[in-house]
Amino acid sequence: MYRIGVDLGGTNIVSAVVDENHKIIAKASTPTLAPRPAEEIFDDIAKTIKEAVSKAGITMSVIESIGVGTPGSVNKEKELIEFANNLGFDNTPAYKLLRERTGCNNVYFDNDANCAALGEAVAGAGKGVKNFVAVTLGTGVGSGIIVDGKLVTGVNYTAGEMGHMVIVWNGEQCTCGRRGCWERYSSATALIQQTRDAMVIDPFTKMWDIVEDGDIRKVNGKTAFDGMRAGDATATKVVEKYMGYLACGLVNIINTFQPEILCVGGGVGNEKENLLGPVRKLVKAQTYSIHAEKQTKIVPAELGNDAGVIGAALLDS
Amino acid sequence: MYRIGVDLGGTNIVSAVVDENHKIIAKASTPTLAPRPAEEIFDDIAKTIKEAVSKAGITMSVIESIGVGTPGSVNKEKELIEFANNLGFDNTPAYKLLRERTGCNNVYFDNDANCAALGEAVAGAGKGVKNFVAVTLGTGVGSGIIVDGKLVTGVNYTAGEMGHMVIVWNGEQCTCGRRGCWERYSSATALIQQTRDAMVIDPFTKMWDIVEDGDIRKVNGKTAFDGMRAGDATATKVVEKYMGYLACGLVNIINTFQPEILCVGGGVGNEKENLLGPVRKLVKAQTYSIHAEKQTKIVPAELGNDAGVIGAALLDS
Repeated sequence: MYRIGVDLGGTNIVSAVVDENHKIIAKASTPTLAPRPAEEIFDDIAKTIKEAVSKAGITMSVIESIGVGTPGSVNKEKELIEFANNLGFDNTPAYKLLRERTGCNNVYFDNDANCAALGEAVAGAGKGVKNFVAVTLGTGVGSGIIVDGKLVTGVNYTAGEMGHMVIVWNGEQCTCGRRGCWERYSSATALIQQTRDAMVIDPFTKMWDIVEDGDIRKVNGKTAFDGMRAGDATATKVVEKYMGYLACGLVNIINTFQPEILCVGGGVGNEKENLLGPVRKLVKAQTYSIHAEKQTKIVPAELGNDAGVIGAALLDS
Repeated sequence: MYRIGVDLGGTNIVSAVVDENHKIIAKASTPTLAPRPAEEIFDDIAKTIKEAVSKAGITMSVIESIGVGTPGSVNKEKELIEFANNLGFDNTPAYKLLRERTGCNNVYFDNDANCAALGEAVAGAGKGVKNFVAVTLGTGVGSGIIVDGKLVTGVNYTAGEMGHMVIVWNGEQCTCGRRGCWERYSSATALIQQTRDAMVIDPFTKMWDIVEDGDIRKVNGKTAFDGMRAGDATATKVVEKYMGYLACGLVNIINTFQPEILCVGGGVGNEKENLLGPVRKLVKAQTYSIHAEKQTKIVPAELGNDAGVIGAALLDS
């Protein structure tokens, strides 16, 4: 039994054939080239699906279902993508467009962060666990919540936006319109900004040698960590402050859900134990449940970029 | 069919007979007199249960189950109340103590805020709804979460502590050890403190006339609202700032869960539309899901103090 998972991203479309053990058998991708008419984007989705099926050495007839992770919000009753800013979608009849182009009736859509969380929950860091939260530290802070084995989608399928929980009252302006959202402090984008701010203040920090060409525009999510590893005090301060913000949001999540496992992935998440070791200590000092026998385990994500397509393929289950 | 719900509070023990329509048939109560030996407290719980049963004109033989809402955390596997600071309980074998004293084998325990949320979800503001969050603005900020018709209790039954979500980075010291928790800004306790602070700064505010005996110690959660209603500018500012903090936490909850209904109760919640009208506007301006067709409804709690015993009686379902 095979399913298709599609990651419809702002930059690339990735389709994969996933087997019943949640393993990817074959993959195909193409640039999204958004914004352009939805019909054209769905033509390309169908093309990558067929390419992946062909690479897998199977035919569409053995495909049980197609699941798509999309930016924005999905209206499952009306079978629309209601709004996806970076794709230029507005009440797009996504289910219909996909069925017409693939001949497959069992199509499912959900938010991309939710798909990634579902993938990690079922086939990755949360395997075997029923209560699980996944956090992704990338351009923003994405999150997906699994309670009792099921995605928490809320009344309008836009739940799980914990990156847009305010942790700094009247703090930095967020793209969502609020001020002080967690993602303004704990995303890779935020870490890069915090790193640059510190470099501007300290002309002697080793981070100037670490960053490519000494060019502040080339700072990335690793720069401050590399500086810390080189023993630089300014870099260490940047990392420690960043970890403080990260721990703050993670404790908010734990006090809310007390999940069995809380997994952290995304670009900054690649620091794994360098990041999670100290963060666990900060979290432990703050959680409300200190008297409980069982505690949430904070672990690195396991599936990397594959979480999204694997999770999308799982949308029918 | 009848069930017993018990609200084991730091001040009073309240037991109620609840019928299958979630109506309270009879109630009995006694002071908790905590801290004292758990055996004595459970003697009194059994006494109030028997008194309520007798008042209801029934016998223990028709009681299906007994549910207890308790402060602190419950370990359901080990059948203990792990820790309840204000009762002086520490790994107390609560299930056994209750069974021995009542002859009823079907006994259930959960956190009191969770019970109140379950009561509102099933028999009050959330009747007929599967995804629901209840917030109580009292001494602290309590919250309980219902996803897919079930209480979210987490791996250690201490989930739902959204009052201890930080909204003000490095803000006011909270009793839980963190700084800037929502309950430090949106509880009745916090509103009273904010009211007093404003009165100290403004000797001409009408709130000095409103508060009993002009005594700042007698400020309560209504004082600032009464001042606002009397057209006082300082009082209006206090209320507006308080509403801002409240809306901030509510939006955090909505961005996380997108529940069908979010109900607000507790002492300050008694202001109902005076509070919720303006707060709804603040929330609407901030939620992430503005493009979704369906939105969370923010409504007042309906069951008042009865939510806890009704919810406790529902713990077996």
